[in-house]
Amino acid sequence: MVNMKVNTPKGTRDFSPTEVAKRNYIINTIKKQFENFSFQPIETPSFENSETLMGKYGEEGDRLIFKILNSGDFLSKASTECIAEKNSTKLTSQISEKALRYDLTVPFARYVVQHQNEIDFPFKRYQIQPVWRADKPQKGRYREFYQCDADVVGSNSLWQEVELVQLYDSVFKSLNLTNITIKINNRKILAGIAAVIGATDKLIDFTVALDKLDKIGEDGVKTEMIAKGISSHAIEKVQPLFNFTGNFNEKITLLKNILASSPEGLLGVQEIEFIYNQINNIGLQASILNLDITLARGLNYYTGAIFEVSAPKQIDLGSIGGGGRYDDLTGIFGLKNMSGVGISFGLDRIYLVLEQLNLFPETIINTTKAIFFNLGIEETKYTMQTIAKLRKENISVELYPEASKMGKQFQYAEKRNIPYAIIAGTTEMETQTFNIKIYKMASNNQ
Amino acid sequence: MVNMKVNTPKGTRDFSPTEVAKRNYIINTIKKQFENFSFQPIETPSFENSETLMGKYGEEGDRLIFKILNSGDFLSKASTECIAEKNSTKLTSQISEKALRYDLTVPFARYVVQHQNEIDFPFKRYQIQPVWRADKPQKGRYREFYQCDADVVGSNSLWQEVELVQLYDSVFKSLNLTNITIKINNRKILAGIAAVIGATDKLIDFTVALDKLDKIGEDGVKTEMIAKGISSHAIEKVQPLFNFTGNFNEKITLLKNILASSPEGLLGVQEIEFIYNQINNIGLQASILNLDITLARGLNYYTGAIFEVSAPKQIDLGSIGGGGRYDDLTGIFGLKNMSGVGISFGLDRIYLVLEQLNLFPETIINTTKAIFFNLGIEETKYTMQTIAKLRKENISVELYPEASKMGKQFQYAEKRNIPYAIIAGTTEMETQTFNIKIYKMASNNQ
Repeated sequence: MVNMKVNTPKGTRDFSPTEVAKRNYIINTIKKQFENFSFQPIETPSFENSETLMGKYGEEGDRLIFKILNSGDFLSKASTECIAEKNSTKLTSQISEKALRYDLTVPFARYVVQHQNEIDFPFKRYQIQPVWRADKPQKGRYREFYQCDADVVGSNSLWQEVELVQLYDSVFKSLNLTNITIKINNRKILAGIAAVIGATDKLIDFTVALDKLDKIGEDGVKTEMIAKGISSHAIEKVQPLFNFTGNFNEKITLLKNILASSPEGLLGVQEIEFIYNQINNIGLQASILNLDITLARGLNYYTGAIFEVSAPKQIDLGSIGGGGRYDDLTGIFGLKNMSGVGISFGLDRIYLVLEQLNLFPETIINTTKAIFFNLGIEETKYTMQTIAKLRKENISVELYPEASKMGKQFQYAEKRNIPYAIIAGTTEMETQTFNIKIYKMASNNQ
Repeated sequence: MVNMKVNTPKGTRDFSPTEVAKRNYIINTIKKQFENFSFQPIETPSFENSETLMGKYGEEGDRLIFKILNSGDFLSKASTECIAEKNSTKLTSQISEKALRYDLTVPFARYVVQHQNEIDFPFKRYQIQPVWRADKPQKGRYREFYQCDADVVGSNSLWQEVELVQLYDSVFKSLNLTNITIKINNRKILAGIAAVIGATDKLIDFTVALDKLDKIGEDGVKTEMIAKGISSHAIEKVQPLFNFTGNFNEKITLLKNILASSPEGLLGVQEIEFIYNQINNIGLQASILNLDITLARGLNYYTGAIFEVSAPKQIDLGSIGGGGRYDDLTGIFGLKNMSGVGISFGLDRIYLVLEQLNLFPETIINTTKAIFFNLGIEETKYTMQTIAKLRKENISVELYPEASKMGKQFQYAEKRNIPYAIIAGTTEMETQTFNIKIYKMASNNQ
């Protein structure tokens, strides 16, 4: 029998020991900082009842949710009509009651509502678990990937935003990753701009076009805006946005002028100013905070601050994290007036950045400190005593299982990058000693 | 709008911060020992291609595997005939190509075959990930649960079995869990008994009946055996098994007599004797090794040693771990002659045992060491400086987000069991000090 074709499903991955060690290094660093900032861990099931997830991510989202087929004779409950029509969409809800988690935010909202009587609010929770999306797989986009989220629910305080900026900074500092840009915007500023230009429904078109300023220039952006139905008169009113440079305070002044007629816009500016001033007072270690009014991620649900984090400029990778404030986190499940604010870390992207900048510490890869060679039963009885003692001291050691030729055992130790080989033959047993061979630690562990 | 009914799906669970902390305590302890014994971590995707899983766990297993519905217009590819027939079984493979992992062993076998050219054998891997089974949920049985597995593939050495017994012992010792029984048997001994009684096909009936010796007595067991078609003449040949007591060596002697005519049976005895002698030479810390010839778990695939671990006798909970040797781990995927041996830890059961024996350390529950009260913006600007410094020193501290009344802030701190409340008002700011209130640490953290 020849080897069959065996593979992981499209868009999913196996992780080798080295990859697991590197991923855990990032996850543990994030976890440690989450806990330093007093976030508490929760975990939710991999699948939820379909009604918990469906309709929460828009039509496209509903399509990308992985549905689980009911067990047993699932067709017995399905309507004959649907079956006859071959209508997949209608049939889905009749043969599937559960679906794989699409993100961690909706399950968190469900958790808060379900356990509201056990929770002390404000509730600072973190959650690091995989999510699944039936997206077309492509470079850096997978069908199974981890999200690392920290959210606070039940507090309107802007200190939360201040602390979340610090949390980002602390994580990147701990990873020795510097030159990070934390971009910040505020939904209220965008709403203010829309009000000023008199085109509330064109807000996304406006920000999408403005975001291209670097690429297609002021004229290009304006042409696109006009094509999208924004009048040139409206564009004139926000002319200063086309030269939105300078330091944070200069930008704030600029915005206050533009938004003078919009109370909501001015409130957004005031919020950002508070956050900026407090961050300035405490200081950042690995990142800078940058006001970016083209930042419009999650515009559908964020109601206040919007965050996005960029990798160092020399790395062309886009965002490695994001988040924001959503005033009505749990409303979808009937619990009103619960403001939430949170941030997320992109594990796969951060992995790529650390790899590219060679920032993974050598020490995380190989935990095995020494291998004991196997010269036969009597010798191994002798070495096993020492092996047991070392393990009790939390030193990771390995026994070569067979009394193979020395060459083979050496070869294995070298391939596995184990730094010490420890040998005991008759002489060593008589003198109660060991013969230790020290390998030059390979500089690049597999 | 009233709260909607929101729940986790049947047989699944949310884990609160306290529960996550307790589960992680167990997982991290197991992980640490896996690494001390030089096992390396891998991770595989949550779902596999259906053909990887189907047919590997028997008919009942196939039924209990959660299948994932194909995305998009899944019915377009389904045969009209199947649909018309309302034949769920036939339709499944036409509308579902992926399935949730049912255990960690089959994905591991698939991993070994797929990555055989990157692996240095013998390969000692561990894997701690959730698995899913569409079982009827009941007390202690869930549809989503973690498996914690350590396996070696590519080595026939009995030293692996010796090390796995030690590994069990080391984990339980680290958890301060003593009076553990590690039961051991060998498939070859069972095959030998079957040969001696001349009823190879009745082996499972024989062991199932013998296992009831404590409950229904010798006569009861014999009646059941005869009812199952085992002749009384055959039963006579293994009469000593009905009085299978004494120490390990006495049991070995007994077995050697019974199995004198079965070379395979004698080989099994010899293997167990080797393992026992080596364990005796090294010693166990938290457990005893017990030869139990009624142990027949996984008889379908184990070919050598069989392990099962029992909680301390005062806890009526059944097995908290198990494992064994399977001579052809990867044969199902076309890679022959790869012997595997492994053990598994039952996370949920171990959790119950530690809970019942009050063995979870207090220190794991609350990581937050202090809370800074919020007296207003100026005061918080002052405290935030210190908060940032403490977090840099990896001390977990929290800021109360709103400048609420003191009573409310104290109440929150108390509910959350945070040991110190730190307060800074005008006086403290002027003198650059803090006012610290020490709570009596609650003896039972929620």
